[in-house]
Amino acid sequence: MAEITVLGAGMMGSALCVPLVDAGHRVRLVGTHLDRDIIQSLREASRHPKLDLVIPSAIQPYFDDELEIALRGAELIVLGVSSAGVRWAGRRIAPYVRPEVPVVMISKGMEWDGQRLLPLPDVLSQELPPELRDRIHPVAVAGPCIAGELARRVETCVVFVGRDTAVVARAISLFRAPYYHVWSSTDVPGVEACAALKNAYAMGIAFALGLYDKRRASADPANAGAPGSIALHNYEAAVFAQAIHEMQRVVKLVGGQPSSAAGLAGVGDLDVTCNGGRTGRFGRLLGLGIGRDEAIRRMQGATLECLDILQVMRSACAGFEAHGLLEPGALPLLAHLAAVALDGAEIDMPFTAFFSSPDAS
Amino acid sequence: MAEITVLGAGMMGSALCVPLVDAGHRVRLVGTHLDRDIIQSLREASRHPKLDLVIPSAIQPYFDDELEIALRGAELIVLGVSSAGVRWAGRRIAPYVRPEVPVVMISKGMEWDGQRLLPLPDVLSQELPPELRDRIHPVAVAGPCIAGELARRVETCVVFVGRDTAVVARAISLFRAPYYHVWSSTDVPGVEACAALKNAYAMGIAFALGLYDKRRASADPANAGAPGSIALHNYEAAVFAQAIHEMQRVVKLVGGQPSSAAGLAGVGDLDVTCNGGRTGRFGRLLGLGIGRDEAIRRMQGATLECLDILQVMRSACAGFEAHGLLEPGALPLLAHLAAVALDGAEIDMPFTAFFSSPDAS
Repeated sequence: MAEITVLGAGMMGSALCVPLVDAGHRVRLVGTHLDRDIIQSLREASRHPKLDLVIPSAIQPYFDDELEIALRGAELIVLGVSSAGVRWAGRRIAPYVRPEVPVVMISKGMEWDGQRLLPLPDVLSQELPPELRDRIHPVAVAGPCIAGELARRVETCVVFVGRDTAVVARAISLFRAPYYHVWSSTDVPGVEACAALKNAYAMGIAFALGLYDKRRASADPANAGAPGSIALHNYEAAVFAQAIHEMQRVVKLVGGQPSSAAGLAGVGDLDVTCNGGRTGRFGRLLGLGIGRDEAIRRMQGATLECLDILQVMRSACAGFEAHGLLEPGALPLLAHLAAVALDGAEIDMPFTAFFSSPDAS
Repeated sequence: MAEITVLGAGMMGSALCVPLVDAGHRVRLVGTHLDRDIIQSLREASRHPKLDLVIPSAIQPYFDDELEIALRGAELIVLGVSSAGVRWAGRRIAPYVRPEVPVVMISKGMEWDGQRLLPLPDVLSQELPPELRDRIHPVAVAGPCIAGELARRVETCVVFVGRDTAVVARAISLFRAPYYHVWSSTDVPGVEACAALKNAYAMGIAFALGLYDKRRASADPANAGAPGSIALHNYEAAVFAQAIHEMQRVVKLVGGQPSSAAGLAGVGDLDVTCNGGRTGRFGRLLGLGIGRDEAIRRMQGATLECLDILQVMRSACAGFEAHGLLEPGALPLLAHLAAVALDGAEIDMPFTAFFSSPDAS
């Protein structure tokens, strides 16, 4: 039994509490300033309004201003914040971190600092006390996990990735539950690149849904085919395969292992992200051809990580190309996704440019 | 403009005629003895009853007994028969083949000869005249392609694989159409292993659909979640990733390139096969727990390639293990799929045994 503190009571942070309490740990779930309604609901009825679920009453909810109390004696700190909240979370926990306490984070993304693509564990490290940075190696969670399913104890397979194998092993040992299967990896740049990129690529795969809806609305119905059998699955699957191809190229670029793209963090997470969720809904809207501004408006303020990572990758690719590290045109799918989602270009999938990077795998 | 003969007027053989006539070729489509109704319908109304579509009238339909006439002057022969029909088709075309005429085949499967897993192009070669076997290198089509979509000119990306790059290039040059994008590969064993295995693995991925339906029927509806957002997508995606992991292992075993599993023939075709089709329907029935015999009965005689390849792989794995070429337990997902679909075992996905083969990628 361990004392564990989770900061961030959104869907994923809260869902991760379920295997932890099932493993017998005492779990304190601390909402951020954005989570006050969630904590209130958990205190009153153990009901998580976003997960739409009664979660185990053993999970102890705390408000943001109670973080210090909630962190007392913690043997594991989990950061359940979005990628945009990583630096903030780092500063919040900085006074309390200790080398012997693993820090696990669920955020997915990368930052471009003008020279390198930084995985978020490295971004977090920058916010920790300088004298501890070399002794605390954050562990990131990657792989296919829909929070609402994990919270309902659906069988889930993920990867914990970190630079210190002992810390990763310690974190895994605390999380293991009968339905939560965790593998370890030290490929921080590779796994984190896949985790970040999958939002952009899942958006592109979802273009097919919208393109099909548009085509069906205008086509001869007799020849349109029925959804589920004949749609634009060929289109979708080709984009899926090219996405993995390009992920491998980016993984090599950041010094990771291309095999990570063929595993849970790449293939697995891309597959799960294509099954519903806001990224897919946004991609479908773009496929319908309503324009990126209208598509964003219809998403009603939902966080669109796909736009963030496309912006980051656009800057990064320009930098890598300028330094001769990336051949121009090596990532035609990513470039087209950026053109559509950032610049409002029309969708015209560059199939003929696919699978042209011999250096990908 | 070339004269092209397609043997087999099922959905895929017929669909492949569409890019060929669009590319300006004269295409003769020859039905097998199983396709008489199809040829009759094409002659009367250019309507393909299985594709549920009027196909271009430039496609010239022939009955089985007109094969010799239909093959006269052919500059390309395409075999649109199922894996079970490959030897039959080989014997039928054997009197007419010539080294300068490429043979393209769409069948997906492997045979186990007690020593080796034979890709179907090699199986076909065994039926060709002995003096020509070394001079005719069949070209196989792999990658994500639903026939009904190709016939409707949906953008489609595939791989043509063969041992002679010049023959592959010639075949590709004949097939290229604006919506049909073809890449070349010489990795015959690797690409064909992926093409064959994907039916078995897609069946396993579809277990999640049936398991979810069963779970939802018995669970507290308030906590069951809505389809499309919360289902068993985590389960499904984990099985998907493990499928690619195991494909890579089998590809290595047959002397292929593991990178083929991360491309169109592996990731791409597995993705498309999970989107509907009879393999998915069969897997869902097994997931519902109704038993393999009842599941087969409900498929009403549909060809289930997944059962064929599972049987082949069971024999092959036993042989490889006996010769020390495969470590026991290296393919836990495949072994479980065989137990469920061949022996009627209950589904109990061996997640903890996943990703344990360090030799896979």
